[in-house]
Amino acid sequence: MSDRLTTAATPPRLGAWLASGSITAAEIGSSYGTAFVVIDAEHGAIDDAGLNVVIPILRSRGQEVLVKVKAPTRESVQRPLDFGADGVIIPHVLGAEHAREVCGYAKFPPAGDRSLAAERALGYGALTPEWIAEQDARTRCYAMIEDATALDEIEEIVALDVVDGVFPGPSDLAIRRGRGCYSRSAEDFADLRRIADACAAASKDWILPAWHPLEQEFAVAHGAGGMVVANEYTALGRGFASLVEEARTRAEAAGR
Amino acid sequence: MSDRLTTAATPPRLGAWLASGSITAAEIGSSYGTAFVVIDAEHGAIDDAGLNVVIPILRSRGQEVLVKVKAPTRESVQRPLDFGADGVIIPHVLGAEHAREVCGYAKFPPAGDRSLAAERALGYGALTPEWIAEQDARTRCYAMIEDATALDEIEEIVALDVVDGVFPGPSDLAIRRGRGCYSRSAEDFADLRRIADACAAASKDWILPAWHPLEQEFAVAHGAGGMVVANEYTALGRGFASLVEEARTRAEAAGR
Amino acid sequence: MSDRLTTAATPPRLGAWLASGSITAAEIGSSYGTAFVVIDAEHGAIDDAGLNVVIPILRSRGQEVLVKVKAPTRESVQRPLDFGADGVIIPHVLGAEHAREVCGYAKFPPAGDRSLAAERALGYGALTPEWIAEQDARTRCYAMIEDATALDEIEEIVALDVVDGVFPGPSDLAIRRGRGCYSRSAEDFADLRRIADACAAASKDWILPAWHPLEQEFAVAHGAGGMVVANEYTALGRGFASLVEEARTRAEAAGR
Amino acid sequence: MSDRLTTAATPPRLGAWLASGSITAAEIGSSYGTAFVVIDAEHGAIDDAGLNVVIPILRSRGQEVLVKVKAPTRESVQRPLDFGADGVIIPHVLGAEHAREVCGYAKFPPAGDRSLAAERALGYGALTPEWIAEQDARTRCYAMIEDATALDEIEEIVALDVVDGVFPGPSDLAIRRGRGCYSRSAEDFADLRRIADACAAASKDWILPAWHPLEQEFAVAHGAGGMVVANEYTALGRGFASLVEEARTRAEAAGR
Amino acid sequence: MSDRLTTAATPPRLGAWLASGSITAAEIGSSYGTAFVVIDAEHGAIDDAGLNVVIPILRSRGQEVLVKVKAPTRESVQRPLDFGADGVIIPHVLGAEHAREVCGYAKFPPAGDRSLAAERALGYGALTPEWIAEQDARTRCYAMIEDATALDEIEEIVALDVVDGVFPGPSDLAIRRGRGCYSRSAEDFADLRRIADACAAASKDWILPAWHPLEQEFAVAHGAGGMVVANEYTALGRGFASLVEEARTRAEAAGR
Amino acid sequence: MSDRLTTAATPPRLGAWLASGSITAAEIGSSYGTAFVVIDAEHGAIDDAGLNVVIPILRSRGQEVLVKVKAPTRESVQRPLDFGADGVIIPHVLGAEHAREVCGYAKFPPAGDRSLAAERALGYGALTPEWIAEQDARTRCYAMIEDATALDEIEEIVALDVVDGVFPGPSDLAIRRGRGCYSRSAEDFADLRRIADACAAASKDWILPAWHPLEQEFAVAHGAGGMVVANEYTALGRGFASLVEEARTRAEAAGR
Repeated sequence: MSDRLTTAATPPRLGAWLASGSITAAEIGSSYGTAFVVIDAEHGAIDDAGLNVVIPILRSRGQEVLVKVKAPTRESVQRPLDFGADGVIIPHVLGAEHAREVCGYAKFPPAGDRSLAAERALGYGALTPEWIAEQDARTRCYAMIEDATALDEIEEIVALDVVDGVFPGPSDLAIRRGRGCYSRSAEDFADLRRIADACAAASKDWILPAWHPLEQEFAVAHGAGGMVVANEYTALGRGFASLVEEARTRAEAAGR
Repeated sequence: MSDRLTTAATPPRLGAWLASGSITAAEIGSSYGTAFVVIDAEHGAIDDAGLNVVIPILRSRGQEVLVKVKAPTRESVQRPLDFGADGVIIPHVLGAEHAREVCGYAKFPPAGDRSLAAERALGYGALTPEWIAEQDARTRCYAMIEDATALDEIEEIVALDVVDGVFPGPSDLAIRRGRGCYSRSAEDFADLRRIADACAAASKDWILPAWHPLEQEFAVAHGAGGMVVANEYTALGRGFASLVEEARTRAEAAGR
Repeated sequence: MSDRLTTAATPPRLGAWLASGSITAAEIGSSYGTAFVVIDAEHGAIDDAGLNVVIPILRSRGQEVLVKVKAPTRESVQRPLDFGADGVIIPHVLGAEHAREVCGYAKFPPAGDRSLAAERALGYGALTPEWIAEQDARTRCYAMIEDATALDEIEEIVALDVVDGVFPGPSDLAIRRGRGCYSRSAEDFADLRRIADACAAASKDWILPAWHPLEQEFAVAHGAGGMVVANEYTALGRGFASLVEEARTRAEAAGR
Repeated sequence: MSDRLTTAATPPRLGAWLASGSITAAEIGSSYGTAFVVIDAEHGAIDDAGLNVVIPILRSRGQEVLVKVKAPTRESVQRPLDFGADGVIIPHVLGAEHAREVCGYAKFPPAGDRSLAAERALGYGALTPEWIAEQDARTRCYAMIEDATALDEIEEIVALDVVDGVFPGPSDLAIRRGRGCYSRSAEDFADLRRIADACAAASKDWILPAWHPLEQEFAVAHGAGGMVVANEYTALGRGFASLVEEARTRAEAAGR
Repeated sequence: MSDRLTTAATPPRLGAWLASGSITAAEIGSSYGTAFVVIDAEHGAIDDAGLNVVIPILRSRGQEVLVKVKAPTRESVQRPLDFGADGVIIPHVLGAEHAREVCGYAKFPPAGDRSLAAERALGYGALTPEWIAEQDARTRCYAMIEDATALDEIEEIVALDVVDGVFPGPSDLAIRRGRGCYSRSAEDFADLRRIADACAAASKDWILPAWHPLEQEFAVAHGAGGMVVANEYTALGRGFASLVEEARTRAEAAGR
Repeated sequence: MSDRLTTAATPPRLGAWLASGSITAAEIGSSYGTAFVVIDAEHGAIDDAGLNVVIPILRSRGQEVLVKVKAPTRESVQRPLDFGADGVIIPHVLGAEHAREVCGYAKFPPAGDRSLAAERALGYGALTPEWIAEQDARTRCYAMIEDATALDEIEEIVALDVVDGVFPGPSDLAIRRGRGCYSRSAEDFADLRRIADACAAASKDWILPAWHPLEQEFAVAHGAGGMVVANEYTALGRGFASLVEEARTRAEAAGR
């Protein structure tokens, strides 16, 4: 059982969400007391060259770095880990069998099927049995639960050794469960509840993208190990909007 | 006299400030009703390759694009204009003679000494007398007033044909005027007042970096043509800080 | 039925083909009255970082942007759409079942299986049911018909809801149909004819890479909705070749 | 049978290993008499934009360029070849059926299933039957033998027409054969011996990553066609370590 | 006296002009028999990172590489030479004294004032007296004659040892000589004639940007050593324009 | 007087030299116990975008980062400091008056003339008097002594407040002192001795590029504060050369 797992008495770790690949956004976004960052390499514009830069910068700032990888494929999982990420979040895991395969790419044999490499994660040096063991202990692999078939097999998924935890994708899950656009409905939270319960039963971690107060309260109430609460785009938009709006209001007041 | 010059009845145009070179920040930062953006190529991490990308994207979003150029040199002035910028802001202009030279790099002969080129600004096509005239009419050149010697010669600077307006640099000006760190003191505003008066007398535009309410009120009161009110770094920081703080507060409340 | 579909009375839209990722080539290549561009991300040197730049620049120039994606995989299909492309062209679709899966990555559930994201396509904002509907209506998905098995199932492929049209790949199709190198033979055109007929019967669009007069005439005669007629490499080569050749001829004449 | 195949009388070609994408490292690393380079695009930080630059530079320096591709997928195999690589090394080939498919992406039909393209490899020109034949003759495809299932089917793999040779991955193979971290043990060499024998029997090439004297001696003794003997990271580390250590020793001696 | 200097019996070398930094454009643009390329780093979007890539690629294709540098400054002159360029073309040389200084940055002391470095030009190795002598012999430095004051001192400029030749800038020269937009007028050619005569008298090379038949004939008639005849932007535009126009004409004809 | 200044009892700090901009080389090059790194932005291929990445990565690895800037200009000096460098080394300082100006760009008024900015060095935050004071105390500015005129005025240069130390450039100095290629001659060391003596008299630091044992012994004997002993290119070359050579020897021995 993971020592990072929260208990009822431990509030969830807070995380930031980065997607553009901007170094500046990474530096500023990791300045407000978050414990971890999620880099969205699935949808954001960042690519491998960007990950190779941002990962060491974020780690040097004390952040646990989790990469939401481009796809549930071997290469998408292993490269961020080669570059030194602390963990991966794998999108569109379709079920337990799929999870066993794709989450296995984050752990070396015999536990999984990660490919050995002498990159940054190894200090560009020589492989040793000790390093292999340490990497597997350190590397966190989260399966995204955002497909209906994955929710159906949530208990089997969290039971897998190669799965350190799960990361729900509420928007994709809602539309794939036939409810259309995610709306923080009772059904939406019921699905999240099922995920939380499965994790609790299996003593596994889960991290919620929790932008809304209701999501944050849910994460706290149900023992999430982490919640992602500050999104780069939202932060930029909120900051610019308020700065411009305040100035416009002042200019109008002053101009009268 | 510029048709974009504001009068007492016209509030200053609002502008955003970009410095990192992030395309996403450019797109989000230009979404809240600003009329123009300033790209800080003097201190920000953006370089020519970045300007070449961000300038056309910002212009396609209806923004007037002003580049605070890397240095008061020919090459730093002309390249952003080649890439299609609407204007340049030239840092560390030291006086009237210096302004005549370096602001001249933004206008073609006989008015100035800009070098002719067939780049994006020309549609990659062939030079014509009409285009040369249009470019000179369209291109805005702002001299920064941030050195004591420039302030001493402000009246001569704004009288120059190659100077479309000025852009005060309050922090550099304060320290160079011997007052140490800029503090929005009476002396600071007295200097800005002298600049505003000189522009008014010469019917020239001026744009103030106006982050603080006092600066914004000053800009409105003294007829600035524009004020830069929303800084990318501040926006990011304010956005992330508030999102993390709100989540922490909620988590603590919920966790009790 | 698509409103962009041409009829006998409507000539095919003309398109340009870009592959290098050069911004300049994108700007110049979209200056001659084409309605759309195809960016070849399957074989060209452009990668995601390049797509993220070129897509908004081309769209701001009034071009419909279709990305021939790197591979028939979820991540290759969804990222260009996240970056704001108008549509995707999916290479090496192997048959109707394959088309259902991979073209489905271009449409959200329940129609398809595209993953939801808040990127440029959404204005970096919040998901709404309206946006989801609009995206699906706007996004064009073309299946490439370049494998023998796909031609065998062309009627089933064009009948699929997730397929807005098809894009034949004559060179790959010829070699995979056992005819060796494509030569605009009668058999080559017979295959294209079968594709055109299937589209007509299903009221679906098709776009032909039509570099040669015979291909262009075929596209017009058989009601193609679009034809790609100007290739970046050909344009560069033709332009450089003629400029150098003309100069050489003149130099020799003048030197006599 | 390949004319590059070594015989007992021919020592293995020597190769360098590059992974960072640094142009300088490519230039310096190809200055010491190697016949070929392997670019590790599976684990190294280099991506497609980097390959597009480094491949022509290395080829102009007389090196045969083999790219260890990112994954055993069509797109990962074909793009380096489009960019002009002489060959590919395909990681994690799982067995003969897998090899037939993924190595097939390196050869055009009817031999394989490579997709046709008019990129650097073709001089950006027009496809001809002659070029197709020449490419297939020139392009080298090596299957990596690093999974237990591949070793089990080594004889079938080397018998395939689309397989020009194999490239063992000793570290991955050891851990996947249940021996834990590779240690140059008798079992490790027994596996390599089986690979070498299969190649000899099938008159196919094999290339060994041979960093250690024992590996190099093994490669020579068993008729490897090539051995990779100089790794960018090792070279950098060895060079920096010795330079710093020598200076420290001298400084201490001089300081006494 | 330069051995590359043409005589009445030798037609001018032909050159291509590149400006975007596109590798593809460099490869295609150097495929039609030119002897040299000019890379416009003064106005084009290419920066040092781009020069570092394109220079070795062009040199490997047998082209003499001349970089029109960003500015007449030490750093702009020396870096392309460090990266391996064969020569530099220095814009906006203002007169003989200026030429002595800035062209001097292309030659080592005692001839000039170039800074010593162990970069690509030196093979990343150790400085030797032989290499210093060879570099100075190989490196070509062209002063641009595009300012009125430079034309006034053309005889003194071409007499300088650090000046291997000159490169007229007809457009800038016309506007700076008070004639407005360059129009291939008699006065324009009279200025060029003065430059050609000065070079002939001093046995120095000159290269003309000669896009127009009249310019090409002039260059031949007056013994230019080289003429730049094929511009990347013109080539792209001419190629795309003709391809689209031909297709449109065919489509209209076919559609009738 | 600097607290980092060495005394007879303190051996010089050891430093590494980086020039390519490779992140990997930066990481490996800082792994062998050096106290500082010099990044050669004057001659190396690294540009501002590269500095912006490598500086924070090197600082996070405990290295003092000194950037040998592109040129003795305001913009070249201030940007690396904005990006967080610990100090700058300014090439081609021509004398005391020149040093006062260009080294002044590294210190804020009233000591110098550095331009104020809110970039990484400031944590992207707001200017305070405390930060200004701390920056000036932390920032190290080294004048290069590599021109004859600078050596002539070495005593005046080291007496300047804006000069924290000097960095001799032996190769440029030798050729500019009329001795041709640097050869570690008695005259070469006499010049270095004069520099060392001037620094000792003025209690200023000096750092020697000391690749050769004689240079290293000289640096120790004469109280250099630092010596740069490990060059990226040398390290790469030495590493690759020895690895290839050892393998070739073994292959030949084994092949007999």
